[in-house]
Formats: sequence, C-alpha cells, structure tokens
Amino acid sequence: MARIGFLGLGIMGRAMAANLLKAGFEVTVWNRSAAKCVPLVAQGAAQAATPREVVEACDFTIAILADPAAARETVFAADGVLAGMSAGKGYIDMSTVDDATAREIAGAIASKGGRFLEAPVSGTKKPAEDGTLVILAAGDQSLYDEAGPAFDKLGKKRVFLGDVGQGARMKLVVNMIMGSMMVALSEGLALGLKGNLDGAKILEVIEAGAMACPMFKGKGPMLLNDDASTSFPLKHMQKDLRLALALSEELGQSLQAASAANEVFKRANIAGHGDDDIAAVYRVVR
Amino acid sequence: MARIGFLGLGIMGRAMAANLLKAGFEVTVWNRSAAKCVPLVAQGAAQAATPREVVEACDFTIAILADPAAARETVFAADGVLAGMSAGKGYIDMSTVDDATAREIAGAIASKGGRFLEAPVSGTKKPAEDGTLVILAAGDQSLYDEAGPAFDKLGKKRVFLGDVGQGARMKLVVNMIMGSMMVALSEGLALGLKGNLDGAKILEVIEAGAMACPMFKGKGPMLLNDDASTSFPLKHMQKDLRLALALSEELGQSLQAASAANEVFKRANIAGHGDDDIAAVYRVVR
Amino acid sequence: MARIGFLGLGIMGRAMAANLLKAGFEVTVWNRSAAKCVPLVAQGAAQAATPREVVEACDFTIAILADPAAARETVFAADGVLAGMSAGKGYIDMSTVDDATAREIAGAIASKGGRFLEAPVSGTKKPAEDGTLVILAAGDQSLYDEAGPAFDKLGKKRVFLGDVGQGARMKLVVNMIMGSMMVALSEGLALGLKGNLDGAKILEVIEAGAMACPMFKGKGPMLLNDDASTSFPLKHMQKDLRLALALSEELGQSLQAASAANEVFKRANIAGHGDDDIAAVYRVVR
Amino acid sequence: MARIGFLGLGIMGRAMAANLLKAGFEVTVWNRSAAKCVPLVAQGAAQAATPREVVEACDFTIAILADPAAARETVFAADGVLAGMSAGKGYIDMSTVDDATAREIAGAIASKGGRFLEAPVSGTKKPAEDGTLVILAAGDQSLYDEAGPAFDKLGKKRVFLGDVGQGARMKLVVNMIMGSMMVALSEGLALGLKGNLDGAKILEVIEAGAMACPMFKGKGPMLLNDDASTSFPLKHMQKDLRLALALSEELGQSLQAASAANEVFKRANIAGHGDDDIAAVYRVVR
Repeated sequence: MARIGFLGLGIMGRAMAANLLKAGFEVTVWNRSAAKCVPLVAQGAAQAATPREVVEACDFTIAILADPAAARETVFAADGVLAGMSAGKGYIDMSTVDDATAREIAGAIASKGGRFLEAPVSGTKKPAEDGTLVILAAGDQSLYDEAGPAFDKLGKKRVFLGDVGQGARMKLVVNMIMGSMMVALSEGLALGLKGNLDGAKILEVIEAGAMACPMFKGKGPMLLNDDASTSFPLKHMQKDLRLALALSEELGQSLQAASAANEVFKRANIAGHGDDDIAAVYRVVR
Repeated sequence: MARIGFLGLGIMGRAMAANLLKAGFEVTVWNRSAAKCVPLVAQGAAQAATPREVVEACDFTIAILADPAAARETVFAADGVLAGMSAGKGYIDMSTVDDATAREIAGAIASKGGRFLEAPVSGTKKPAEDGTLVILAAGDQSLYDEAGPAFDKLGKKRVFLGDVGQGARMKLVVNMIMGSMMVALSEGLALGLKGNLDGAKILEVIEAGAMACPMFKGKGPMLLNDDASTSFPLKHMQKDLRLALALSEELGQSLQAASAANEVFKRANIAGHGDDDIAAVYRVVR
Repeated sequence: MARIGFLGLGIMGRAMAANLLKAGFEVTVWNRSAAKCVPLVAQGAAQAATPREVVEACDFTIAILADPAAARETVFAADGVLAGMSAGKGYIDMSTVDDATAREIAGAIASKGGRFLEAPVSGTKKPAEDGTLVILAAGDQSLYDEAGPAFDKLGKKRVFLGDVGQGARMKLVVNMIMGSMMVALSEGLALGLKGNLDGAKILEVIEAGAMACPMFKGKGPMLLNDDASTSFPLKHMQKDLRLALALSEELGQSLQAASAANEVFKRANIAGHGDDDIAAVYRVVR
Repeated sequence: MARIGFLGLGIMGRAMAANLLKAGFEVTVWNRSAAKCVPLVAQGAAQAATPREVVEACDFTIAILADPAAARETVFAADGVLAGMSAGKGYIDMSTVDDATAREIAGAIASKGGRFLEAPVSGTKKPAEDGTLVILAAGDQSLYDEAGPAFDKLGKKRVFLGDVGQGARMKLVVNMIMGSMMVALSEGLALGLKGNLDGAKILEVIEAGAMACPMFKGKGPMLLNDDASTSFPLKHMQKDLRLALALSEELGQSLQAASAANEVFKRANIAGHGDDDIAAVYRVVR
C-alpha cells in the first residue's frame, strides 16, 4: 500500500487526511503550524518537520493549501516539496489555484523528474468529512491511477481530464453554474415572498420537482432564515465567476446570464458580504 | 368514494385520468374529440357527451385543458361546466391559465354556489404518467381536502396556497427558476466544450455534486446530443418568464438574472425554436 | 388662420398654449380647474366651460392631459370632446397614453366623422417653453397638414408616422434608448469616480467628444451634485422601458441591454426614487 | 518654439504630425517603414533613422504606435527611445496601451532622468485630421504644460488627469459609455424597424432631441445601410469593455448594463465582426 504524504491540515485537509488514516493508509503529515498535526498523529499518522521530509518519505504527496501563495511557498521554500522531489515520486495539488501557479508548480516538479497532478475538488467541509468530494484531476495519468484507491476514500466521484489546467477549468465551469443557480433561487424566492407565497412551501415545491438538488436543500432554508454562516465564502464564488468570464473572453463564448449573475455577486461583495456564505447574495436580491 | 369528473384528455389528462381509474375512483370523462375517451372507457371510465353532463354526474370535476381559450369555452359554452354547476359541487382547473381567466372562471363557479380550486401542476408527461406531479392548489380549501385522496394518486406532492391566483403565481416562480437553470446549464456546457472539456464528464461531475437534479440529468444529455424532442415547449417557458417579469414589475422586485435568461429564451424563440423543448435554448447559447 | 382648441394646462400644456398665442393663433382653452386658464386669457385666449364647447368653437382641438384616465374622461364625459365632435373637426391628443386608450379615442372620434391624430412629444418642460419639442404624429394626415403651422410653433421637429399607434411606438423607441443612455452615463461616472477621476473632467471629456448631447450636458452635473429635481419622473421612464420590453416580446426582438437597464430602473423605483428625476437612477448605480 | 519628435506614422500619426507641421512646429519624424516619412518630409519635416536619433534631436517626442508590443519595442530596442533619453527630455506616448506597459515605459524614462506623459486620445481618423481629438493626459505636469501649444493643434480639448494610468483609465470610462450607447442605438433601431417605423425617421427624431450626438449622427446611417467600414474596430471596443469590467472588479463597482453590452459585443466578435467597425454590433442585435 502506497505511503502517502499530506500537506495542509486546514478545515478540508484535516478531514481528508483523517479519512485516509481511517481507510488504513500509511500517512505522513505536515502543517505550517505543527499543532494541527496532533489529532492526526493520535489517529496513527507520522509527522514530518518539513514538506521536504514528507516528500522524501512517501510515494506521493497530497497538498491542499489555503491559496496560491501558500501553494507556491510549500513547493519552492528551502525545505519545500521541490527539495525532496526525485524521479518517479508524485505530487498532487488539491488546492484551488490559478492557472499560472498550477503550471509553474507542474513545471518545477517535472524538472526534478517527478509526476504532477492537479486535483481541485468540488464540495466543501461536509463532503470532505463524509468522503464524498468530487475530484477533478488533470496531469500525469499514471499518478492518477496510482492515487485512485486514496481518491476513492476522499470522494465519491473522480474524473481524469487531461493536461494540467483542465481540472481548474472544470471547477470554474461547475462553480459558474452554481453561482447562476444561487442567484436564480434568490430571485425566485424573493419574487414569491413579495407575492405572498410561503417561503417554506416554495422550497417544498422545488424539493418535490425536477430542480430538487442538495444545494437548494441546503441553501434554501439559509435564505429564509437570513443565515449566511459560511461554508463557501461569497468572495470566492465571485472570483470564480470573474475567472469563468475571463475564460469565456479567451475562448469566445458569450455568457449573458452568468455575466448578470456575476454583477449581482459583485453587488453583494461590495455591500460587505464577501466573507459570508454564497447564500448572502440573497441579501442584495430580495 | 367521490365520483370524479375529468375534462380534457390530452397528453397530461389522459395519463392523470388513467391513474385515478387505476386507484379505483369512479371517473366520468369527456373530451372535445370523443375518440380520446375510448381507451379510458376500456379502463372502466364512464363517458359523458358534454361537460355539463360530467359536472351533473359527479361530486367534483377536474379539468386540464390546452390553453386559456379552451379552459374558458369548456366552462362558458352552452353545455359547459357552468350549465351543470350547482350548490356544493366542485370544479378543479388544473390547466395553466392566466390570472384573468382563473378569476373569471372562479367567479362564475361561485355565482352558481359551486366551489372552485385552481391547481396547476409542476411536471410534464412522465410525472403525469408516474403519478409524481407536484400540485399547486389555491381557492376553496374544503374542495382541496375533499380532492386530497385523488390528488395523492396524481402527484407525489401537493400544497394549498390560499386564494385563487396563488397557485398560478407559485408555478411562475418555479418555472422562472427552471428557465434560469436551463440557461445556466447551457452556458456552463458551452464554455466547457469550448475549453476542450468532455461534455459527458461535465454532466457526470454535476451529477455527483450539490447541483445534481432530475432536470440536469434529463436535459443534460439532450443538450449534448442536440436533441430537442419536446416535453416542455420553449415558447411556453418564454411566456412564463415574461409573466414572471410582468409580476415582478407589479410587485416591485428586480430580477437581473432572470431578465437576462428571458432575453436568451427570446432569441431562441425568434430563431424558430418555440415548438422545440426548452433544451433548444442551448442552440442560441453555444 | 385656424381656430385652435386647447385642453389641459399643466406644465406642458400651459407653455404650449402660450406659444400658440404668442404666434398669433386664435386659441380657446379649457382646464379641469379653471383657475389655470387665467394667465392664458390674459395673453389673449378665449375660455370655454367644457371640452365640448371648445371642440364646437374650434377647427381642431389639441389635448395634453396627465394620464390615460384623464385623456379618456376628457373625451367620454357628458360634456366631453365627443359630445362636441362633428364631421370634419379635428382632435389631436398629445398626451402619452397606452395603445388601447389611443385606439379607443381614435375610434370614438371617427364614429362622429371627426379626424384624429395622436401626437406625443419628445421633450419636457424646457423644450415646451422654448417651442423646441419633437412631435411624433400618427393618424389622419390631412389633420397633420392642417395643424402643421401650429406644430411648427410648438416644436422644432415633427414627423408623420402613419397609422394611430406609430407615434406612441416611436416614443417608446426613443425613450428606451434614453433609458439605456442614462444607465450608461451613471455606470461610467460611478466607475470613473471610484477610479479617482474627477467627475467634472469626465463630463468635460464626454462633452468634447462623439457622445456630446444635450441630455448628458443636462443630466451629468445633476448626477455629480446628487440633484434629482424632476423634469422626467423616473417611474415614467421605468414604465416606458417596461412597455418597450412588452413591445419587443410582441415583435420578436431580443433586448439584452435594455432589459438590464430596465432592471436598474426597477431597483431605483423600488428604492423610492420613482418621483425623482431619471437622474436618480445614479443613486442605485454608484 | 519646441523641437518636436514624432514616432509612428500610421493613420492617426500621419495626420497628427501633418497638423503640427502646418502649425509651424519644427518636427522630426521616424516610422518603422521609412517610406511613410516621405509625404511629411515634403511638408517640411526632418527625418531620422532611429527613435534614438529623434529623441536626441528634440525637446520632447510624441509616439503613437499600433499596440503595446510596438510601443515597447520603440522604447526598449537597441536604438530606441531609451537609448536617446537624457535628463529633462520629454516622452509622450499617445498610443493606447495597457497599464503594465505604460508603467514600465514610465519607469524606464524616469530612470534616465526623462519626463513621461501618457496621452491616449478619444477620437479616430477624422478628428485626427481635423485636429479635434480629445487628449487624456497623465504623468509629468511640466511636460504637459510644455506640450500644451502642440496639443492645442492636435485636439480641441485636453485634460490633465494626474498620475500615469489615469489617462488610460479615463479612456476606458469614455469608451465603456460609448459601447453601451452603441448597443442602445442598435436595440432601439432594431425594435423600431420590427415595429414598422421608418429607420431614417427614427434617426431624425433622435437627432432633433436630447440624445443628438456626433456618434449617433455618424453611426446611425451606417446601421441602416449595413455599412461597417471601419473607423473603430469592434474587437478593440470589446477589449475596452473587457478592461473596463476588469477595472470594475478591482474597484468594486457593479456594472449591470455595461456587462450586458459587453456580452453583445462578444457575440458580434465571435460571429466574425471583430475587424469591422463597432457599427457591426447591430448585426447580432437586429
């Protein structure tokens, strides 16, 4: 069974590493602030002092870091991933990073003879804990196959999408649809309430019909209760819409409705709801 | 057990009347062209020569007619519903009609001492056959209760929404969200395909995540296969979006994204896709 | 020289009737509250007690009334226009009314053998005073020709557009463009100010270039000074956008940008700026 | 009188340099393909072999180049502007370049002790020939003042806007308004024509009213005649809209209508009208 490294024990990473341990994998963990390693060590993980040590000790290493800056530093720092990389080893970045960062890291790993996979996920805290993420992988296919058994403990669905960059692209497509749906639900609910319909009944009707989906089931009551406790920060959604629109300019695709949804998210962001959940877009719609 | 009348044996009505018969209800049917009654009579229905006779013979009568003109004529013609209506009898219009038509019919029924319920449905042919419609009722609550056992054979969900008009309003809200989602899926798929993602994989990823819903499961492959065989005609969706926007003007609700979706549906309608399925909106998006 | 009747001495009508008197026309005036006739009688007008008397005394009668209800009542009341109408007389409605009202009045006038012209205007108080309105006439061409010399004192431009209805339609087209431009200016100014450009300089640059127009010259400083003193009430502009969009549904024309502009005006209306000038749309944009 | 250098003799530059010569300025010209210098030398210009020689021979040098790449090369090439730059000399870039290019060039000029001014213009071929451009200057104010007499021969209006970057920003704001207006005119005309109004009369009515502007006067007949002979390429307008939207994301300004206009321009671009005039946007609207 593969020895797996795990870098980054935030909300997502902690849950994911725990799932790997539960499944019996041999996991070596590292986190910038070492304290976060403690509960995982209690569950059987080995702990390393630097990303370099993790990489050296393992067949392949998974990272899920906060942002592109953290992703970059973890790779390029003195005792970073690159320092430990050697021919045949694998590096799987499950962070959501921009295209340039993904390509830069991919190139650096390749230059050491390593194999690289980008594998951003669709899904947030709850699916990470439940092992029901959707994994959008692209890059080295042999590494994808090798990591398959581990991926199957992290998510309920995984796809291999080709060259590095296609994983991030898939994530933009999916999140763009999600952003448009969030605005659609908000507008529908707002219209219905102004028309004296009962909000809970609107949600019941949706839930019983062709549009029933986990997202509406989860977010619908949040809208009605003015609850915006964050599972997916609104500013990140707006960023994804912005990136999807930028991609559409590059690829020559007009996006009439998504551009309108983006402007609604921009208004919500400007109104100060950037750190709230995407459900807060309702606050500028109603 | 109540004696139920059934007027209108189109695609929807035929399936619904059959479900009532299957459940053991005593059903008297009528249709403008009498030939459509034959298979239902074979299943045990009584047949009447006019709407008047149906109403006279039954405790309450359900109608599901093609459009407001047909709904009106069935009620107001010489041997129409009104001619047979008397104190205590019920009339349930499950057609999708405009506000003015619904109120006019409601008033006429009341003037004869009858009870009226509007009960448009969410769902098309397949749910009608499977008895899984969503029934959006409003009007006379005693009639709603009395028709409950029958409704439970026609649909998997029913709600009572108050005064006449609220049923149609709920339907607009739900269809408006559906229209926005149809455009969202179209734009997402179009962007992904231009970005060299595999269409089937995009649908798989959606199906595995928070946006998984019967509608995307049904329409997604239609988009990829350029299949627009009609289950919900695009021109009707555009009409519902237009009515929802008109309602929003009346109620004072800005609908930034739905208005953009409406313009996309307008373009599809103008391009000649009005009689195709709503899936054909993809043809002007891609 | 034609004897001209004039019904309705509001802000617009008062100024227009005065211009006719100044030009030497023989004018008989009427207004619902007779007090408003006094200054015009002082300028040489005759005064009549009812619309009927005006029409009886004149070759053709011009009306400019507050809204469709007033336009209708002035025609159909006991001593209204219709009571005085006879073969060959002319009636020119310069009010902005809906299609149905225009056709109803046109039909009634024709039924008495009278000639009818709808002639809504582009331009508000100042152009009315200066005699620089733009007159959008449609209906009876002989009446258009006969009223020509009078029109030339009321406006700087007049067009004859064919059948009744085309005048109102032209007005919608023109006001729709105006609404879109008002939002365009608002968005440009808001973006520039957030980008630390000087507002007055933005207006100077516009004024020196291809987009220089009386509207931007007039409204631009109002935006910068948060001045929304009303010359064209925002709610009327929103109504015109709504009607233009309804017309586009009827004629099969997608209006992507105008529908977006309409939603911005709706937001401004909902936010309580309906009675302010159209310049107040800036308050929900900035 | 200042000795003025002039780099770049394309459509714009040729006309501008000629205007300076006509006004009696001492002008030294250079162009990548030297043949374009001939007519200007015939009008009294001196000719230099490289940008370096131009800069060395003059007090300040004006450049108007095709794109950021050309702007960059003209400065940084072996015998480029930078090679000739020394303390106190001025360099005025009237090209439309991106922010990064402007800042890089500004920094390089400053590093040699030179003074830098960005001065993009509003206006195309005709205003360049007529000396009626609008000049949007930002950077070194002493250079702005020194170049004032020359600017006054090139344009009818000039503004000084502060730090480098503000000139380009003003241009984006102005062009964004222009793009929205182009779509507004297109939608209005398309709606009117579908409603059987005469196109020429629509333009007459606009021309007589508050929206009368050189742009509508110029572009209106082009729309009616399906003439898209290029004065401002559509793809450049779409690029400016894209940049304005990117700026709005940075500055926190929602742009509901401009984003809709951008999507219309994107559709026109995708449909193959990128090299046509912005008037060609009408082809995807009508």
